[in-house]
Amino acid sequence: MADRYTGERLVDDMSSAERDRAARVEQVLPALREAAAQADADGVFPAGHVALLRDAGLLGLVVPTEYGGLGGGLRDLAAATFAMGTACPSTALAYFFHNTSASRGLLPLEAIDIGLFDDADVPAVRAFAHKVLQRMADGTWLANFASESVKSSSANIAIATTARPATRDGGSGWLITGEKSFGCATGVADTYLVTARLDGTSNADGLALFLVPRDAEGVSSRAPWDGIGMRGSANHGIKLEEVWVPSEEALTVEGAFVKMLQCSRGSFVGNQLAITAVYVGAAQQVYDHTLHGLTRKTFADTGRSIAESPMHQVIIGEMTERLETAYLWLKRQLLLESSEPPIAPKADVYRQWRLAKGSICEAAFEVAMGAFKASGTSGATMNGVVGRAMRDLAMGLVMTFPPERGRLEAASMVTTDRANALFANEGAAS
Amino acid sequence: MADRYTGERLVDDMSSAERDRAARVEQVLPALREAAAQADADGVFPAGHVALLRDAGLLGLVVPTEYGGLGGGLRDLAAATFAMGTACPSTALAYFFHNTSASRGLLPLEAIDIGLFDDADVPAVRAFAHKVLQRMADGTWLANFASESVKSSSANIAIATTARPATRDGGSGWLITGEKSFGCATGVADTYLVTARLDGTSNADGLALFLVPRDAEGVSSRAPWDGIGMRGSANHGIKLEEVWVPSEEALTVEGAFVKMLQCSRGSFVGNQLAITAVYVGAAQQVYDHTLHGLTRKTFADTGRSIAESPMHQVIIGEMTERLETAYLWLKRQLLLESSEPPIAPKADVYRQWRLAKGSICEAAFEVAMGAFKASGTSGATMNGVVGRAMRDLAMGLVMTFPPERGRLEAASMVTTDRANALFANEGAAS
Amino acid sequence: MADRYTGERLVDDMSSAERDRAARVEQVLPALREAAAQADADGVFPAGHVALLRDAGLLGLVVPTEYGGLGGGLRDLAAATFAMGTACPSTALAYFFHNTSASRGLLPLEAIDIGLFDDADVPAVRAFAHKVLQRMADGTWLANFASESVKSSSANIAIATTARPATRDGGSGWLITGEKSFGCATGVADTYLVTARLDGTSNADGLALFLVPRDAEGVSSRAPWDGIGMRGSANHGIKLEEVWVPSEEALTVEGAFVKMLQCSRGSFVGNQLAITAVYVGAAQQVYDHTLHGLTRKTFADTGRSIAESPMHQVIIGEMTERLETAYLWLKRQLLLESSEPPIAPKADVYRQWRLAKGSICEAAFEVAMGAFKASGTSGATMNGVVGRAMRDLAMGLVMTFPPERGRLEAASMVTTDRANALFANEGAAS
Amino acid sequence: MADRYTGERLVDDMSSAERDRAARVEQVLPALREAAAQADADGVFPAGHVALLRDAGLLGLVVPTEYGGLGGGLRDLAAATFAMGTACPSTALAYFFHNTSASRGLLPLEAIDIGLFDDADVPAVRAFAHKVLQRMADGTWLANFASESVKSSSANIAIATTARPATRDGGSGWLITGEKSFGCATGVADTYLVTARLDGTSNADGLALFLVPRDAEGVSSRAPWDGIGMRGSANHGIKLEEVWVPSEEALTVEGAFVKMLQCSRGSFVGNQLAITAVYVGAAQQVYDHTLHGLTRKTFADTGRSIAESPMHQVIIGEMTERLETAYLWLKRQLLLESSEPPIAPKADVYRQWRLAKGSICEAAFEVAMGAFKASGTSGATMNGVVGRAMRDLAMGLVMTFPPERGRLEAASMVTTDRANALFANEGAAS
Repeated sequence: MADRYTGERLVDDMSSAERDRAARVEQVLPALREAAAQADADGVFPAGHVALLRDAGLLGLVVPTEYGGLGGGLRDLAAATFAMGTACPSTALAYFFHNTSASRGLLPLEAIDIGLFDDADVPAVRAFAHKVLQRMADGTWLANFASESVKSSSANIAIATTARPATRDGGSGWLITGEKSFGCATGVADTYLVTARLDGTSNADGLALFLVPRDAEGVSSRAPWDGIGMRGSANHGIKLEEVWVPSEEALTVEGAFVKMLQCSRGSFVGNQLAITAVYVGAAQQVYDHTLHGLTRKTFADTGRSIAESPMHQVIIGEMTERLETAYLWLKRQLLLESSEPPIAPKADVYRQWRLAKGSICEAAFEVAMGAFKASGTSGATMNGVVGRAMRDLAMGLVMTFPPERGRLEAASMVTTDRANALFANEGAAS
Repeated sequence: MADRYTGERLVDDMSSAERDRAARVEQVLPALREAAAQADADGVFPAGHVALLRDAGLLGLVVPTEYGGLGGGLRDLAAATFAMGTACPSTALAYFFHNTSASRGLLPLEAIDIGLFDDADVPAVRAFAHKVLQRMADGTWLANFASESVKSSSANIAIATTARPATRDGGSGWLITGEKSFGCATGVADTYLVTARLDGTSNADGLALFLVPRDAEGVSSRAPWDGIGMRGSANHGIKLEEVWVPSEEALTVEGAFVKMLQCSRGSFVGNQLAITAVYVGAAQQVYDHTLHGLTRKTFADTGRSIAESPMHQVIIGEMTERLETAYLWLKRQLLLESSEPPIAPKADVYRQWRLAKGSICEAAFEVAMGAFKASGTSGATMNGVVGRAMRDLAMGLVMTFPPERGRLEAASMVTTDRANALFANEGAAS
Repeated sequence: MADRYTGERLVDDMSSAERDRAARVEQVLPALREAAAQADADGVFPAGHVALLRDAGLLGLVVPTEYGGLGGGLRDLAAATFAMGTACPSTALAYFFHNTSASRGLLPLEAIDIGLFDDADVPAVRAFAHKVLQRMADGTWLANFASESVKSSSANIAIATTARPATRDGGSGWLITGEKSFGCATGVADTYLVTARLDGTSNADGLALFLVPRDAEGVSSRAPWDGIGMRGSANHGIKLEEVWVPSEEALTVEGAFVKMLQCSRGSFVGNQLAITAVYVGAAQQVYDHTLHGLTRKTFADTGRSIAESPMHQVIIGEMTERLETAYLWLKRQLLLESSEPPIAPKADVYRQWRLAKGSICEAAFEVAMGAFKASGTSGATMNGVVGRAMRDLAMGLVMTFPPERGRLEAASMVTTDRANALFANEGAAS
Repeated sequence: MADRYTGERLVDDMSSAERDRAARVEQVLPALREAAAQADADGVFPAGHVALLRDAGLLGLVVPTEYGGLGGGLRDLAAATFAMGTACPSTALAYFFHNTSASRGLLPLEAIDIGLFDDADVPAVRAFAHKVLQRMADGTWLANFASESVKSSSANIAIATTARPATRDGGSGWLITGEKSFGCATGVADTYLVTARLDGTSNADGLALFLVPRDAEGVSSRAPWDGIGMRGSANHGIKLEEVWVPSEEALTVEGAFVKMLQCSRGSFVGNQLAITAVYVGAAQQVYDHTLHGLTRKTFADTGRSIAESPMHQVIIGEMTERLETAYLWLKRQLLLESSEPPIAPKADVYRQWRLAKGSICEAAFEVAMGAFKASGTSGATMNGVVGRAMRDLAMGLVMTFPPERGRLEAASMVTTDRANALFANEGAAS
């Protein structure tokens, strides 16, 4: 049982280094599993988990060894969030958001390497990148607060949080004001990595990053949000009221954010697929739990296991197919985003991701609904494994957008591709 | 808005008497709606609702006027549970179970009328039936505790609660011992209507009915059950430990239960469809709430309503189709079970019900899931309208069995029908 | 078996007059059933069917008795196309289109009654209406050629066929030129009822109707269209090349077409639901055929019927649910469009129809696919009952638009309704 | 465009040898594509295709080079049937069945290598295996006739064709009598590879293989079967009436068939997944055709492409997701069955296959139905690309059993696994 939920579910060729890193994840799972029900009931991130993960070295999982990290990559991250998802999806989700902070170190370095930055900007960019990575490796939980709650009809992120230049005690810096509606580990993380807009700018070139200590003056937690699922992830968000950040704790080079995006593979900033691994882990867990229960419970009249009833066989068959479908999409996306050299153009990887995230989350939720139907009224409790999985997995349907949206996006892309091919051909013919 | 949730959604030809009765239901809806969120949060049936419904005369809704009731029928009951379902599904569910008690008065009287009982048994049967009906009309909340938690692979109900004959203070009576796992208004109803097996019997002919005062010695509530939905219906069940019931408060005539069933139309004991009306009401409510919200919220960039986005239009179209599908099945079943004279043979009505209940509950749940997806993270709260609807409607998938079961049952019936027709034809040919 | 496929499947209260008319339909079913396979194989409308239906009086089914018709209404028409759909869906479809011609007589008369026409126009309108109805009653097959093949992104019908005023032999009349891409009974009907645009007009007010004899000079059939289904309906369409039509054989009063539409109930020109009855009939037939076969075939090893295998039970359950779903939508729509007085506002009836047609055709096709899967390779023949049903029912997915379109239309309507209600409320509040 | 339909769609790491073999397949595609519509219309396998594929060396595609073949494996076979499926699914299917004959050479040799055969039997087994492989390499089309039409409730194959020992002209041999209902290239293949039961045996150990020349005395084709799809694959089957086969043209060693099965990986006799590649190829082709058409056709009123309509975007999004789902299952199965060393236990590979084949064929058919709905009546022709794809892909739903069956089989396997684990644990504990 010990090795059941490792990355071998997601990749076919784990290296020994990956196995070593996975072993660190395995070691924390019992504590995560133990605390999961209470975290959900209370709607509170278990306080001890920060130290637990720090002590296991896992806060630096995807930080290169040269910065003191474990040197893992996207495969490690997905394996970790998957494994944690089988134990405590809320913790897995919060841990995922911590790890996305690493992309704010790694992508700028990649952008420097391929010459996207002016020479003059390189030192500042590199210094910030190093700082992010070293802090993570040193055990800082670095919660990534990127998006906000304003809805935009386009896919673009609308950022209303602003940074105004200022000086304090003779040093230059910024005053940050705004509200971040989504992001995990609110009030728990050591440092918040805040995306804000430089005052007076109006497009993505004006986006900048700021390292904000949790307890800095002017920082407060928003009221806890009584979510239906993922209740232990402390995702209620923060308010910033004229919060001072010195210049060296910020990356304000014009266009830095856009240059970062250019270096990501496939999904937005390059690691979002690990969020869907959380849901697949949760689906695997409720599947196992349900099968285990149904094969042990028996009918009073025949003595046969409930799992063998025709209705249960239909539902189990459906659950099995749905779970495998979730794995297929996730494994493929992981391969597309992690293989070296790349096996598909970035545009294809991106389009696949639009489909994949919805299909994974939908299939995972359907596993939970199968478990719910198969378990009957006795499984239909608020805090039991099945009820919890249903609530946690429902969040997957909205956190990464419903599958309907991804399919429309993919349709738009393939339609545009064909239309472009048409014009290209006609141009060539004339 | 006042008349939106009346029985006109379920039947096309409400009589003026039905409208009068519906008006009584309408009058309690605001109080139900007001208390719904707290009832769900606390997992407690609102104490004042018993008096509220009693004072509105609604405890006698389906009791004939000759016993002091309002004289409503199945159409009234479905209209009432539907309307209450739009306000507080938990209360609607508990109210439904109270009303099913009336069948324990009405069906025996029908069975007498068509000669199913021996003359010698008629007085006892009639007396019990009158008692049930009069108490309901007089304002007694009569919670019906029929089924138990043992799972049987056949469709039969397994009853382990037993009644032993005894005498007390010179009077004859029964001592009841057992546990009832499902039934609403635990600890709330004035009287529990308990189905038990006469000691020493082993088939359905030994089933008997007992009127047990809530506070009788030996009666206790089981531990509250932390359900994922329908949390305000007090459905945790009761324990009975040698509870004394005098003979006149019982119906112990051999075969009485079976004779009752013979008189029911379609669904089991003839009014179960009203439970699905609860779910359709809840689906209508979350649909209206969601449409209302989406047409009022606008995108920050275009100023157009969120409802108009392509993804939202797809989901709204799907929700609209699903909601209408739920209505179609429910309206049809109601017509089949209430039309006079009957428009279909009982076997057809019964088969239709096997399909209908699953299809109604599935469609209603899908409306909630559409609302959930369309509302995004801001609607994904535990206690908001959408989250509550999702949890309440999930209960519909298990309380009346998943749709997969009903479809297999219908398949078995049509297969058997054809096979029987085959044998009949072959017999005729020989 | 004789009465199995009558209108009792669609309405619960057939009148004796309706039963008499249904009996005429029943009487032609054996001949239709007999010829169906060959009609499909050849892709040809069976020549004798015109006389068959004429002799049975059925060409005047929905023509009022005062014009010599049978006096049937929409309920009769749906019952007839349903019954014929169980025997030969192609014939049922062609017969449906003949009957839609009656609306070109009935709706103008209604429009006169409610005062939509100027007094000066009334005589011409009335004369044309009488002519249409009397010809149908007298046994003329009157094929209705309304739509054309141009695709428009809006729901509007684009009509490119034009009529130019002319004189011939001293009489005034019109010269019609154009192409009608869809419409049944091409080369079979006695007379084509052609919708054309008066030369020089550009909106719906310029639409006019013309009675064109099949063999008139300038009329030709388009090349037979090798459809995948409904192959015996002769739906390849006609070409008109300067075809002369005298004035008295035309309805060219300005705005007549629009006024007609104003009088229709629900679906476009008020009887389109009868086309979906064709598909439900076909679905019922393949369902019965499949169940019959599966309960008679046995497994070689166990001797039990194939229908009893777990896989077959799952598929049969699904088919049963799908078939019933098709009936529910159809019956409801029929009730909405035929009840007197109306039970719902026209806008609601229309919105319901947008959903209903897709849901009916989709459910009917899924019955065929269930039959296909349940029948295995032995049923997967081109011309067998199952293969034919699959091909015929696939046509339902495109002839009345796919269900995806109806759902988007309904979504748009409910969204607009809510937005309008919002503005109305805000207006009221100010 | 030239390389669009190669194995790169199915594997990420084609070797140069695989590319060379794929190039041979590419070279025949235009001829296959050219003949496809006529083959379907006539229901006849195009006579010239045998020589076409022979001349391209493709009859020995999966025969090791030491026997004169091209040395391809399962990856090559799947790539070939996929590519041919985009051009002419019928030819692809018939070609698939030819190639399955190679397993009757390869698996016995594997069984020898791992010691499954007695030494005494080895020479005869080896001689037969070599003969099969050499003939294929030499350009013999070797149609594999394994299954028969008797339905058995278990998964076992029932074989009624029998072989009786006999002598002729002094030589020993067998007389074969029976009927083979399924298998392609009837009347086209040079030689039929017939599975029969040795007279007097009753289990799988009595199954034997016989090489029967197409024109041998007593061999006849069954009446052509008018299939709804895959009409050009000549799958009507053969009759054998006392057909003489000399001993050296047979493999009659007891238990040889069973030993072969023991050596296969995953799907039955180890290469069935290549049949699903045919369907995925057909789905890709109709997808491309439809997208191509929809992006070129425009609405008359707006001038925008039809593909951009909301309904079309919904359908295109759905088709895109379905097509990708088919690929995911197929690619995964191919990896499971072809990776060296194996990445999963045989039982897992087998269970995955039970799910995969249904899910692939269902998704591929849904692509065709999406194309059908998106193309409207103009695409709904019998012999057009869309109509043909719909008919060909429907065959996938029955040829490898409906998905419902595979899911029930998988459910049974996982249930049994859990129950076994339970007993194992309990045994261990005692």
